[in-house]
Amino acid sequence: MRARHKKWAAPYIAAHPQTIVTDPDQLQGEWEDRFPKKQPIYLEIGTGKGQFIDTIAKLHPEINFIGIELEESVVAMALKKVIAHHRSNVQLIEGNANQVVDFFKPHQIQCLFLNFSDPWPKKRHAKRRLTSSRFLPRYHEILAPNAPIKFKTDNRNFFEYSLKSMNNYGLKFDDITLDLHHSKENEHNIVTEYEEKTMSHGPIYRIVAHFPDKTDK
Amino acid sequence: MRARHKKWAAPYIAAHPQTIVTDPDQLQGEWEDRFPKKQPIYLEIGTGKGQFIDTIAKLHPEINFIGIELEESVVAMALKKVIAHHRSNVQLIEGNANQVVDFFKPHQIQCLFLNFSDPWPKKRHAKRRLTSSRFLPRYHEILAPNAPIKFKTDNRNFFEYSLKSMNNYGLKFDDITLDLHHSKENEHNIVTEYEEKTMSHGPIYRIVAHFPDKTDK
Ligand SMILES: C[S@@+](CC[C@H](N)C(=O)[O-])C[C@H]1O[C@@H](n2cnc3c(N)ncnc32)[C@H](O)[C@@H]1O
Ligand SMILES: C[S@@+](CC[C@H](N)C(=O)[O-])C[C@H]1O[C@@H](n2cnc3c(N)ncnc32)[C@H](O)[C@@H]1O
Repeated sequence: MRARHKKWAAPYIAAHPQTIVTDPDQLQGEWEDRFPKKQPIYLEIGTGKGQFIDTIAKLHPEINFIGIELEESVVAMALKKVIAHHRSNVQLIEGNANQVVDFFKPHQIQCLFLNFSDPWPKKRHAKRRLTSSRFLPRYHEILAPNAPIKFKTDNRNFFEYSLKSMNNYGLKFDDITLDLHHSKENEHNIVTEYEEKTMSHGPIYRIVAHFPDKTDK
Repeated sequence: MRARHKKWAAPYIAAHPQTIVTDPDQLQGEWEDRFPKKQPIYLEIGTGKGQFIDTIAKLHPEINFIGIELEESVVAMALKKVIAHHRSNVQLIEGNANQVVDFFKPHQIQCLFLNFSDPWPKKRHAKRRLTSSRFLPRYHEILAPNAPIKFKTDNRNFFEYSLKSMNNYGLKFDDITLDLHHSKENEHNIVTEYEEKTMSHGPIYRIVAHFPDKTDK
């Protein structure tokens, strides 16, 4: 999500250090102290303007949520939402997903959301896709045993690529749908801001998968 | 493929024992003697009226093809085609795919085609689907190391099911397409009789996958 540069973003972020972290590797995974309650942590990568994390955090007060977003002007919009709504179970990171292993302790995350990640359509950019073999081992390291990855996209080629990439890495599929909005899985779906714009133009694809542990066949 | 009962089918099959086998377990995998040339064997399950096997056998004289079809009246149509075209590199089996391990020696097959297999939409019939966990171990037994399974369908739910089933069994995906006829993979696609009828109504889905051997990660 590219957003016009926002002058207010940097000072607004600097003014809310209790809700947004800009040097997450300093924390060394000590997230517990930043949430009022010690409860499972779900992670979203590429949080965008925060519609998803804000909504799911409201619906699930029994979960702590962390959202990572690269772009300052974008994450500032997400920050605005969670501050306005007093979501004490949300923390935001201004940072890059490729450093995710430095942000968390091993197996600290109970669920990972990849919502409409950038598709990077050119073949020579394939490694930048958040479902590539560059990223999967890093998720593997921070996810708890059997914790699901939930990946949604509207991009057919990116979906095909991700099916193959996740399968080849050894992830086990729990649920595959080629048209989320016309399947019974849709009942619990939380629509993101990107999804809202794109959903009338074609199907939403989704993969739910987990890394097998040693007892999985 | 249900076909009206054909009176001529049984005698026609009986008259061509050199091209069609009705008691394949008797052969104990001694297929070499039934083909003029000793060359790799590709298998199609659910051959239908034979348009696919007849065409691919013409294009690939360097391969021996075997087609299995359950229905007498249907396999008789396939037999007619291969007899009329003198396809000496085609053998047909009137039989049931669930007995496939009795028809071949271990690892005898170099490639397996599942073209528009019956989708068995009801959940309680899921085990009858040719990509279910009932069938996959049997294919594993007869396929050579790294031999591909090539599965095409027009049925979205069957495709989603098959992605999950094949992944969960441990198959590795080589290629996934959600719209074969609008992908560059289509160049080498051979259209089946079912595909011909259905392709104007929606996308054709395809999975190409193989069983990993011990050296695959
Ligand atoms: C297409 S937008 C989708 C935003 C939101 N998830 C939605 O569905 O509306 C993708 C977002 O991921 C962010 N992003 C891309 N690569 C990232 C990375 N490596 N680390 C963190 N965020 C990233 C982009 O800045 C952008 O905001
Ligand atoms: C929908 S038709 C497709 C025929 C052909 N492959 C095509 O694409 O035109 C499925 C075929 O598989 C056959 N079939 C179904 N189950 C089978 C089994 N267990 N063993 C062998 N053939 C089977 C059916 O009789 C039918 O002819």
